[in-house]
Amino acid sequence: MDRMNDTLIDVPRGLTNVVAATTALGDVRGHEGFYHYRQYSAIDLARERSFEEAWYLLLFGELPAAGELAAFRTRIAEARRLPEPVAELLPAIARLTAGGDALAGLRMALAAVAAADGMRPVYDEDEEARLRDAIRIAAVTPVLLASLHAYAEGRTPLEPRDDLGHVADYLRLITGRTPDAAHEHALSAYLTAAIDHGFNASTFTARVIASTGADVGAAVDGALGALSGPLHGGAPSRALDTLDAIGTPERIDAWITETVRSGGRVMGFGHAVYRTEDPRSALLKEVAEGFGGERVDFAVRVEERVQQLLAELKPGRELHTNVEFYAGIVMELCGIPRELFTPTFAAARVVGWTAHILEQAADGKILRPSSRYVGPPAPEPLPGRPIAA
Amino acid sequence: MDRMNDTLIDVPRGLTNVVAATTALGDVRGHEGFYHYRQYSAIDLARERSFEEAWYLLLFGELPAAGELAAFRTRIAEARRLPEPVAELLPAIARLTAGGDALAGLRMALAAVAAADGMRPVYDEDEEARLRDAIRIAAVTPVLLASLHAYAEGRTPLEPRDDLGHVADYLRLITGRTPDAAHEHALSAYLTAAIDHGFNASTFTARVIASTGADVGAAVDGALGALSGPLHGGAPSRALDTLDAIGTPERIDAWITETVRSGGRVMGFGHAVYRTEDPRSALLKEVAEGFGGERVDFAVRVEERVQQLLAELKPGRELHTNVEFYAGIVMELCGIPRELFTPTFAAARVVGWTAHILEQAADGKILRPSSRYVGPPAPEPLPGRPIAA
Repeated sequence: MDRMNDTLIDVPRGLTNVVAATTALGDVRGHEGFYHYRQYSAIDLARERSFEEAWYLLLFGELPAAGELAAFRTRIAEARRLPEPVAELLPAIARLTAGGDALAGLRMALAAVAAADGMRPVYDEDEEARLRDAIRIAAVTPVLLASLHAYAEGRTPLEPRDDLGHVADYLRLITGRTPDAAHEHALSAYLTAAIDHGFNASTFTARVIASTGADVGAAVDGALGALSGPLHGGAPSRALDTLDAIGTPERIDAWITETVRSGGRVMGFGHAVYRTEDPRSALLKEVAEGFGGERVDFAVRVEERVQQLLAELKPGRELHTNVEFYAGIVMELCGIPRELFTPTFAAARVVGWTAHILEQAADGKILRPSSRYVGPPAPEPLPGRPIAA
Repeated sequence: MDRMNDTLIDVPRGLTNVVAATTALGDVRGHEGFYHYRQYSAIDLARERSFEEAWYLLLFGELPAAGELAAFRTRIAEARRLPEPVAELLPAIARLTAGGDALAGLRMALAAVAAADGMRPVYDEDEEARLRDAIRIAAVTPVLLASLHAYAEGRTPLEPRDDLGHVADYLRLITGRTPDAAHEHALSAYLTAAIDHGFNASTFTARVIASTGADVGAAVDGALGALSGPLHGGAPSRALDTLDAIGTPERIDAWITETVRSGGRVMGFGHAVYRTEDPRSALLKEVAEGFGGERVDFAVRVEERVQQLLAELKPGRELHTNVEFYAGIVMELCGIPRELFTPTFAAARVVGWTAHILEQAADGKILRPSSRYVGPPAPEPLPGRPIAA
């Protein structure tokens, strides 16, 4: 489109490698197998810090001191409570979306929260109000997911508990049991590692919508839409589906060989960014092996054999497990049902999205590229009218 | 972000003039004051053809023959009928969003339609199913808007009527009266001219979400989110607010001079793309003048004086009315309440969004740019743990 007197700028298809924004939130270094939030390794944070500490770091640029962390936990606990009109709407939303896309139900519920809170366009709000909206949307997401899931199963949702951490309470809301420290830590490691990961399509979507000045709820709803697309990073449940399809250790080799020979894809392997081991996969494997057991041994065995057999069948193509593979195992160990794997990922990533929304809102410039017209020349004169039907 | 071994590509901030996609749907030629849908002038279409003909043209590339148009109208009429579970949900959505952002209510309602229809990711559907979903979402949008508006005002919504055209029936659903030919034509001219207009932020958002393979409802919800942002093209109601603020013809000069001198903005003037007259504005002025009357004369007088006074106060800066200015007048003449101006625009633009979604889905490549990290160097080692609170 001819705009502002300027010439169109051609870039690689799909905007690959095009710098759409600068960010101080983090980066992914694909060749090093390294990614970070602000100045710290994301894996270090996932292993050694709580989810709330990483959340605080992304919002404020520094890890919290003890008092700051306590105040932040209190703030999150308050933001987890559902507004009454939203709570009343959830059974109807659950009926509509049960058996379908849980992210669609979450989109509706978050729009309801934004409306109930009277959220306003980010450009009409000051920094403190934007921050309040960002924390609200991210904090309430796991509660909405757990509530919608409970209704879909015919149960009454549990109320969130202020005395538990964000991760432990989410797990309690889903499973009905307060988790022990090992399971809390396992899920926390996964969720903390999933908060942010460069400029994926959903994060980019959130920033494009925020760049128009729309409210935080609208921007997150768009990100959830993008996340629901099959090309966006995949779904951890598919890796478990692969394990199920293989079934038993003695069938591993035959299954993999047959799948690769017939051109099928072994889910849970390969990533667009990492050319070496996905650091999230390594972390989650370590977490899974901490629990041990037959299922974990089986997954480790499948990973080994896939890599060995692929090296034989397709030499030169190094393939590593991606985050999906052991994420599925860890969530299964924590008692999260498979249909909640992607929604659980969203419950973590929403923290990253909202941090990006705040950063984009502070930037203030609309993200508005152009298109190149490739259709027939215009204008043609309109042809004679069709005879009215 | 370091990705695929490649180097980051720096482009102008906000992706200005960067070609994010090719399109055969249309183009805007800002210097000529011209835009087109496929091979035809959009203004010619708005003036001489029905909304449904332009819609068909965007979807199929050619204007329909008489029989094709009749079949398409029937198809649209069927797609306007609300699924029962969605109709049941609307009163609750209206309660939550009444007095707030009507687009947020529409987002929730469209997500409900997508769920009720069982819409699947575009990449999992064939061309015919994608087309069905696209027509459904675009056709049902005005009905949802009118229904939510009726509930918000404490009325029971009217049922859509199959024997009326898409535009006439929308106007009937809003005003409660079947419009005469002059008002139907006036609104049709506006809505047809509003279907598409290059790569604005909402259209781009729809394409980014569709590029992940998400369903049509999710992509349109994202576009609606972007449209709700204050930087996205503005709102026709603001131009009327300016007329209200001026009040009477004799106050025009003083108000404009005072506003410009105090650095305020006169709403309804200026556009990011057009360097000459906005062709939509010229069309809608012509439509408004067809009705005549005191209000129209006042608007024309304000337009003249703004341009004359701005030429005196800020020489060299040519400012024209944009689409908002006379769009507000035309919608007011048609009896559309001010809070429905932007939603009514959305009821037209959703046809453009869905055409773009189909085009993007056929392309099949994810739109996934990168970011450049500008924060402190990483990794720093994690500091000592804070003392637990």
